[in-house]
Amino acid sequence: MAASSSLFSCSMHMELFSPKISKCPTDFVCCRSKISYMFDTDTLNAIFKVARDMENIERNSPESQILEGYLMSTIFYEPSTRTRHSFESAMRRLGGEVLTTENAREFSSAAKGETLEDTIRTVEGYSDLIVLRHFESGAARRAAAIAGIPIVNAGDGPGQHPTQALLDVYTIEREIGKLDGIKVGLVGDLANGKTVRSLAYLLAKYKDVKIYFVSPDVVKMKDDIKDYLTSKGVDWEESSDLVEVASECDVVYQTRIQKERFGERLDLYEKARGKYIVNQNILKAMQRHAVVMHPLPRLDEITVDVDADPRAAYFRQAKYGLYIRMAILKLLLVGW
Amino acid sequence: MAASSSLFSCSMHMELFSPKISKCPTDFVCCRSKISYMFDTDTLNAIFKVARDMENIERNSPESQILEGYLMSTIFYEPSTRTRHSFESAMRRLGGEVLTTENAREFSSAAKGETLEDTIRTVEGYSDLIVLRHFESGAARRAAAIAGIPIVNAGDGPGQHPTQALLDVYTIEREIGKLDGIKVGLVGDLANGKTVRSLAYLLAKYKDVKIYFVSPDVVKMKDDIKDYLTSKGVDWEESSDLVEVASECDVVYQTRIQKERFGERLDLYEKARGKYIVNQNILKAMQRHAVVMHPLPRLDEITVDVDADPRAAYFRQAKYGLYIRMAILKLLLVGW
Amino acid sequence: MAASSSLFSCSMHMELFSPKISKCPTDFVCCRSKISYMFDTDTLNAIFKVARDMENIERNSPESQILEGYLMSTIFYEPSTRTRHSFESAMRRLGGEVLTTENAREFSSAAKGETLEDTIRTVEGYSDLIVLRHFESGAARRAAAIAGIPIVNAGDGPGQHPTQALLDVYTIEREIGKLDGIKVGLVGDLANGKTVRSLAYLLAKYKDVKIYFVSPDVVKMKDDIKDYLTSKGVDWEESSDLVEVASECDVVYQTRIQKERFGERLDLYEKARGKYIVNQNILKAMQRHAVVMHPLPRLDEITVDVDADPRAAYFRQAKYGLYIRMAILKLLLVGW
Repeated sequence: MAASSSLFSCSMHMELFSPKISKCPTDFVCCRSKISYMFDTDTLNAIFKVARDMENIERNSPESQILEGYLMSTIFYEPSTRTRHSFESAMRRLGGEVLTTENAREFSSAAKGETLEDTIRTVEGYSDLIVLRHFESGAARRAAAIAGIPIVNAGDGPGQHPTQALLDVYTIEREIGKLDGIKVGLVGDLANGKTVRSLAYLLAKYKDVKIYFVSPDVVKMKDDIKDYLTSKGVDWEESSDLVEVASECDVVYQTRIQKERFGERLDLYEKARGKYIVNQNILKAMQRHAVVMHPLPRLDEITVDVDADPRAAYFRQAKYGLYIRMAILKLLLVGW
Repeated sequence: MAASSSLFSCSMHMELFSPKISKCPTDFVCCRSKISYMFDTDTLNAIFKVARDMENIERNSPESQILEGYLMSTIFYEPSTRTRHSFESAMRRLGGEVLTTENAREFSSAAKGETLEDTIRTVEGYSDLIVLRHFESGAARRAAAIAGIPIVNAGDGPGQHPTQALLDVYTIEREIGKLDGIKVGLVGDLANGKTVRSLAYLLAKYKDVKIYFVSPDVVKMKDDIKDYLTSKGVDWEESSDLVEVASECDVVYQTRIQKERFGERLDLYEKARGKYIVNQNILKAMQRHAVVMHPLPRLDEITVDVDADPRAAYFRQAKYGLYIRMAILKLLLVGW
Repeated sequence: MAASSSLFSCSMHMELFSPKISKCPTDFVCCRSKISYMFDTDTLNAIFKVARDMENIERNSPESQILEGYLMSTIFYEPSTRTRHSFESAMRRLGGEVLTTENAREFSSAAKGETLEDTIRTVEGYSDLIVLRHFESGAARRAAAIAGIPIVNAGDGPGQHPTQALLDVYTIEREIGKLDGIKVGLVGDLANGKTVRSLAYLLAKYKDVKIYFVSPDVVKMKDDIKDYLTSKGVDWEESSDLVEVASECDVVYQTRIQKERFGERLDLYEKARGKYIVNQNILKAMQRHAVVMHPLPRLDEITVDVDADPRAAYFRQAKYGLYIRMAILKLLLVGW
């Protein structure tokens, strides 16, 4: 397949999983010497094409059994029921089986200090693929470096959460129908939200993208992303007028202001959280074809009365995540 | 099928599940505008007939695979390993798959306040049916109101636990062979036990039922149920003589005195708990065809030496619960 | 099969599981009046032969489905993610299904005191086999005494952990190719480690075995095992020279010094833990065919640079545990 070769024309840094697996059904997973895939747009498009196939799999069809006989371990060092559910559903929707560990810290506590590496080397004996959530940045890379089976990074601390970024881009493509030429407003906590940082990074792969940053001053987008976008020739601007931005954009991507980032300065938090709310006023300003996205969970930064509007895409976005994860599991275990 | 029409001749209030599902294989699940089923005796009998079929499914028969390709999520906001195990076993005995969440409160804690509604809308994207246990009365109704897939109420706080009530009635029918004309002694904590309250309520649907209440004064059956039984023409009486009641009844339904209801008045608890014990004396008084039931867990309100008597039906009762839950899952996912 | 008869020529005390099951597919599980199996070497060899078959099962082959339609409950009263994962993987690798309870103490807390026996009698209604981990010595025996389905002991407190002992012996047989005439050095915490105690016990079944004990003085092997070995004619000695022992042995079996055993005497712990480390020096002394084993988790009693040596067998040992557990599940559910 043409797209598979592009998997190795690395142009972006986002660790998703380890290609080190014992059998090599396809080129995709055959690159034993590398521990991360670099996504270019051809690769993304190829993955999205597989995800689209996943949307159309019917119950009890042969396609619903393509991962029969495969066993996935979810090893979560910090709980994330939502992400775990999504991966486990994806595995089961393809006929595969799951071993669950919701409290993987117990591995190390029981051991009074077992290393992540030892845990991985034990668990890889029991399963065919590991989905790892860890509290330390770089944990997925460490795991992939010693594992003989694929490691999927389901978020490692302040580091990356690459399947979230993939599903966000896939959602835009499915909802708007294009990525080149897209106008996206990123709203809310842009300083701490890794979702919006990763999304900005991925969008820079596409042509003629325009990005608006709308956030309270205390949680503005950091310079590293701005500089990266500039270096890639991406047009971006900061704005304090959400209504204006909403009227321009194809996508209003709202995020939660994270209270836990404010420590004792609850006054700053209260001031920040109420500043940019997606409500009926914003919907009124938005174009008919535009959508509202949110990585969830949602508090009151999108009012509940928005849910009924067909442009509220955030629950569909969670569902697209299922298809993206089905695609990734399929690609890692049986190839293209 | 004749019975299915009676599902809509609502005469009793017991929320079991949401009929709002996206596909309508049968009449049973087709009633999108309603969010609860009202059980009359025809409906109960029809469900029991399906449960009876479930008892006879053989390992690896085609019937053991009727839910193949279906995925059930158990979302438990408070732990109830017993109930969760029963539902998950039921699903797997029919070839279906399960996604487990034992600590669903984490959904909201991670979210610092995500609503039940948002959790349901996310999880419904991952599965075909949700079994919900919640700490708040009315939670199942709220979930069903927004879900696009069936919600089974596995207990919502001080509210209802409808599958327990169903399995209790099914147990009586299976053990005694009839429900009309039955004599049942309800024993123990009748004030707080939702099991006995729901059972009294359901038994009122049948003819010529006689109910005895035997309980310490501090935990007597409340007037609402007594008034309801009277209004339905059910013969009931209170008694303090368990031996006498045991000799009259087809079913002695014992329950645990719940220590946690007594707060600091442990003296009252100690007095209440020892008052009515099912032991060899009670067995001696009971008729040969009669049985002892208990919703479990059991402490010392039934002595261990009763277990060996064939009239000790409480572990069989737990097993009947499995068949009832198999029947419910089957009806909700593939219809009659 | 010839070996099956030897299952009843009991010569060793190690409770593994209950033979009381409702159906008797083979002699192996038919012995209803006994609650433990006594392993002699013929039995061990027969089990190892089945384990060897398990190593060669291919994905989606008919053999990978021999437990289709069977349901295993894991009831863990204390967490042991590693052991649970191993059993659950074993069950799924044979086509069976799993019900998980990671926090079985909740059974009793919810019940404010439900007995283990009642929990077992409830759960046996939901599944075909129970894997039990408990914090009290003798719990597996109690469970097996009342259960109508097989109970597999996955460790009961300071009592036994028989599948660990089985997999240790299997590992030696697979790595060294023999058990008669073997020389094994047991190193580390020999006073508290039930692994090394059980292993010494099992090795005494074989001919011409030589055992070396190498441990800090505070955690020396206890007299009961030494006396047992002497009574069986097993040659053993204590040594403080790990290099010398390593040069003699086929197997260096290292264990973790358990900090929690030292209470407030952390000075003694620190002195003990550093005394016998398996590192490059030990590897240099070891023969080419010899191996290093460890029950895991490992702290620093084996240095990480040992991992790359082909004689480091501890991760393979974990994998052999999977095959042993597959064999046991197969034997208990469908027989030889």
